[in-house]
Amino acid sequence: MKIENINVSSYPNSEKIYVDGKLFPIRVAMRRIRQYPTVRIEDGKRVEYPNDDITVYDTSGPYTDPAVTPDINKGLPRDREQWVEQRGDTGRLDDITSEYGRSRRAMRSLDDIRFPVFHRPRRAREGRRVTQMHYARKGIITAEMEYVAIRENLDNEARGIETYITPEFVRQEVAAGRAVIASNINHPEAEPMVIGSAFAVKLNTNIGNSALSSGIEEEVRKAVWSCYWGGDTLMDLSSGDNIHETREWIIRNCPVPMGTVPIYQALEKVNGVVKDLSWEIYRDTLIEQCEQGVDYFTIHAGVLREQAPLVAQRLTGCVSRGGSIMMQWCVEHNEESFLYTHFDEICEILNKYDVAVSLGDGMRPGSTHDANDRAQFLELEVLGRLTRQAWEHDVQVLIEGPGHVPMNKIPANMDKEKKDCLDAPFYTLGPLTTDIAPAYDHITSAIGAAIISSLGTAMICYVTPKEHLSLPNLNDVREGVIAYKIAAHAADLAKGFPGARVRDDALSKARFEFRWKDQFNLSLDPEKARRFYLESRREAPEADDRFCTMCGPNFCAMRISQNVSEKCHENEC
Amino acid sequence: MKIENINVSSYPNSEKIYVDGKLFPIRVAMRRIRQYPTVRIEDGKRVEYPNDDITVYDTSGPYTDPAVTPDINKGLPRDREQWVEQRGDTGRLDDITSEYGRSRRAMRSLDDIRFPVFHRPRRAREGRRVTQMHYARKGIITAEMEYVAIRENLDNEARGIETYITPEFVRQEVAAGRAVIASNINHPEAEPMVIGSAFAVKLNTNIGNSALSSGIEEEVRKAVWSCYWGGDTLMDLSSGDNIHETREWIIRNCPVPMGTVPIYQALEKVNGVVKDLSWEIYRDTLIEQCEQGVDYFTIHAGVLREQAPLVAQRLTGCVSRGGSIMMQWCVEHNEESFLYTHFDEICEILNKYDVAVSLGDGMRPGSTHDANDRAQFLELEVLGRLTRQAWEHDVQVLIEGPGHVPMNKIPANMDKEKKDCLDAPFYTLGPLTTDIAPAYDHITSAIGAAIISSLGTAMICYVTPKEHLSLPNLNDVREGVIAYKIAAHAADLAKGFPGARVRDDALSKARFEFRWKDQFNLSLDPEKARRFYLESRREAPEADDRFCTMCGPNFCAMRISQNVSEKCHENEC
Repeated sequence: MKIENINVSSYPNSEKIYVDGKLFPIRVAMRRIRQYPTVRIEDGKRVEYPNDDITVYDTSGPYTDPAVTPDINKGLPRDREQWVEQRGDTGRLDDITSEYGRSRRAMRSLDDIRFPVFHRPRRAREGRRVTQMHYARKGIITAEMEYVAIRENLDNEARGIETYITPEFVRQEVAAGRAVIASNINHPEAEPMVIGSAFAVKLNTNIGNSALSSGIEEEVRKAVWSCYWGGDTLMDLSSGDNIHETREWIIRNCPVPMGTVPIYQALEKVNGVVKDLSWEIYRDTLIEQCEQGVDYFTIHAGVLREQAPLVAQRLTGCVSRGGSIMMQWCVEHNEESFLYTHFDEICEILNKYDVAVSLGDGMRPGSTHDANDRAQFLELEVLGRLTRQAWEHDVQVLIEGPGHVPMNKIPANMDKEKKDCLDAPFYTLGPLTTDIAPAYDHITSAIGAAIISSLGTAMICYVTPKEHLSLPNLNDVREGVIAYKIAAHAADLAKGFPGARVRDDALSKARFEFRWKDQFNLSLDPEKARRFYLESRREAPEADDRFCTMCGPNFCAMRISQNVSEKCHENEC
Repeated sequence: MKIENINVSSYPNSEKIYVDGKLFPIRVAMRRIRQYPTVRIEDGKRVEYPNDDITVYDTSGPYTDPAVTPDINKGLPRDREQWVEQRGDTGRLDDITSEYGRSRRAMRSLDDIRFPVFHRPRRAREGRRVTQMHYARKGIITAEMEYVAIRENLDNEARGIETYITPEFVRQEVAAGRAVIASNINHPEAEPMVIGSAFAVKLNTNIGNSALSSGIEEEVRKAVWSCYWGGDTLMDLSSGDNIHETREWIIRNCPVPMGTVPIYQALEKVNGVVKDLSWEIYRDTLIEQCEQGVDYFTIHAGVLREQAPLVAQRLTGCVSRGGSIMMQWCVEHNEESFLYTHFDEICEILNKYDVAVSLGDGMRPGSTHDANDRAQFLELEVLGRLTRQAWEHDVQVLIEGPGHVPMNKIPANMDKEKKDCLDAPFYTLGPLTTDIAPAYDHITSAIGAAIISSLGTAMICYVTPKEHLSLPNLNDVREGVIAYKIAAHAADLAKGFPGARVRDDALSKARFEFRWKDQFNLSLDPEKARRFYLESRREAPEADDRFCTMCGPNFCAMRISQNVSEKCHENEC
């Protein structure tokens, strides 16, 4: 199998720039959008006033760098490999540790779909912990910490915008568990990013095939596509065939941290028979994925046997795949969940590779009816205890949250998470604020996501228009990502995040000055904005008209307003 | 000209029902959605448990009643005519009062585009006021008040849901100015509805041609279409040719209250030359539209001359069409706005027909940058004074609100409106919570609309994906309406509005029981939900599978959860 290169159309009027580190020899990728000048007629003469370039956060990786031509069959450059190497606390293994991983490698029948390049996995040396939290607690600033500090600030310094974000601040936040830099030492293709309430709100996208759907190439395309539109992290939720091979292709080509839910693959290994799951199979799956480079695992260790009767009282039971699997296992074995009883061992695996744990909310409400109920909040308390436990092993922790929650019940979710889980970053799915709009759940949930992230949620997991109905296609991914970029950015504005206003103000100025191209180029989806504008202008396709079809030439408030203001500036009013 | 009948596909598995009044011989239209039974296998036998019909608010008018076949060329039935007639305080005029209206009638060249039926306009008898507020203050419960009380409650009584909404409660709210029933005596085709923070949140849609666009037939189609999808009121913002005739076609076929911004047409009458506007032309336009049946007028009477310098300081000046026109007029004439100086006369016209005034926010911010600034809040204070003034004439009042506002600044808008404008219903455009997403402003603004209506805003004006870019087409209207139905309903849930939960809970139950058809039928857009579901099921098109393509058959959390719960119910857990 050979996958054709993926051409994402580059952003209009933009260039990829790299900002050098001061502490480390790192290059932090950003996007710079050039603007056209403002044109005024003064004393009968055309005068141009230049407008600043606008620097924006860029998750697209090398795909939008004309100096790099990523080859999907070789994978992205592995820049971060030397940062890890230089710390001297890891080593390369001779072979994959996981039994399953080795067996897959040995299968000739998989040769055709296997990713062509093999990298020997890296692991912490005996007795060492290699997590960002470990370094942070030791007072060590890593290259990753400097990278994310620069990345969050964009060009704030050059603009004279006050910021609290320094490499040392990042270190403190990671040390305190309030921020996570998910960065498996085996995923050196990823550009470091930080998840925490003191930073820009991030968004996660979900991709992955199911038994009924898509193949490897389609999933790789979705991954690149979701990064292009602005996904900060990516979860591969595949549950169909060839999960191991699909994941390898995705990770090697993924410029953002990638997460999985390992229980899905474990269940495939026992042919979908929940009862046959065991700690041994799960453990081997964790190691297999740690060595492939997964950056964070969703682990539903907070689902306990005692919760089963609470679930039975609900309108929509348990809607978490991982949660329902573990619940069934507990009931069938009449035993406590092995994720819970083996949680210390899990952490000791994770801190050898720096995989973060994302404590799954198996009890998240699947309907606004079930929001904030006892099952949900009891689990959150368990997650708080597990957070402490993970931190004892220097493992970085995210806390997953709901789900379906009416607006009036959203603040209690954030408050309780902060309190019970000691300010570990909250990572929520929406929440959806009503249940009555399947096919529009990117909107029902963008409302909840914007609200909860303005209250302190650090990362929001996107929902596409196909939620509840079907797997998303490329267009659904785009719609979902943009809806969540909106929610995240609206929250950044509400929080007064340093520099968040710059892009809004630039676009608003461009809009007011009828610099249509700048309005498109500064927007989250330049292609669509431009297309919508042109659609209605078949009859009058002038590019820089001082009006649009909404109001027509006689009724443009902005033009009239400018005329009035000019009079005011001339002291006529 | 003859317009073909408009077939809106009727809602699936639904019937139009009518609930009889107890005080008046009225029939209140609603939609009843039938559900399939829940099927369980018990002791090896298939047992069916019926599910309740769900009654929902219906704005589609007679178009979805199979017993009626509306003919666009004749207009809708004029049921409300006799309610008005029976009050005995109005009379029919022999001819149109407005000079302009008479001149249009006399033009033979317009015969082809003129609405075929002429109804003699109705007006209050000399010295009488015929507004709902007038009756309410006199202690009179009108048929309109009983209608909206029944309409808001749906089947709450049958369900045993406690409600505070009675005809007397409606009367009190209207008398206090906290609620508006916009119901021009010349628009008897409209079904009464109520706007107020104690009631379900309503949404307004905007249609209307501009000089560059669409014709009469297209606008009538948009009007019917927007009501079909759930628009509660409709504004015709036409500013191109034949505004008078276009409006007549729309009103005669519009089952919901319709609003306009009369200054747009006044400006067309003076060929777009702002300076030539005058009180006389405006006054004649008001009367012209009152007699056609417009239910509420946006009047930018709060835009004062003194605000011009404040506007000049803004990033995006004045973005209200009506506001900018009046500002320019004030500056050019160096005079106070005639809308302000003649406001008492305006009110004395309006209370002869019961047209509500929607006090326009000419100073609404056009960018998040300008939100909550002095220009905006000063105008709001003026609107408060005008509210008192309108109420002295028994004229019903709505207060229009922003615009572009970051989330953290939204609550101050609602607080100030309540305080300055004495709890008159707030009617906001979004607000948009960020400026960076043209082509997705239905989403940036649905976030703000949901938040502000959960705080007490009574009606939200939709924004379509084409906002800032172009006039909406039919599909944009649908997308905009659904986004705002979501915002309004999310707010109703958050407010704990009586009965709001019923539909959510029914849909969630259907979802959990894999009653796919019920899930679609109960949703805001059954056609799209069903289409999305079927899209990915070409290979496995079974109708009632107990899974979907998102997770595939082995991984359905809801199915697993049901199995676990069944065990729990059998006391095995």
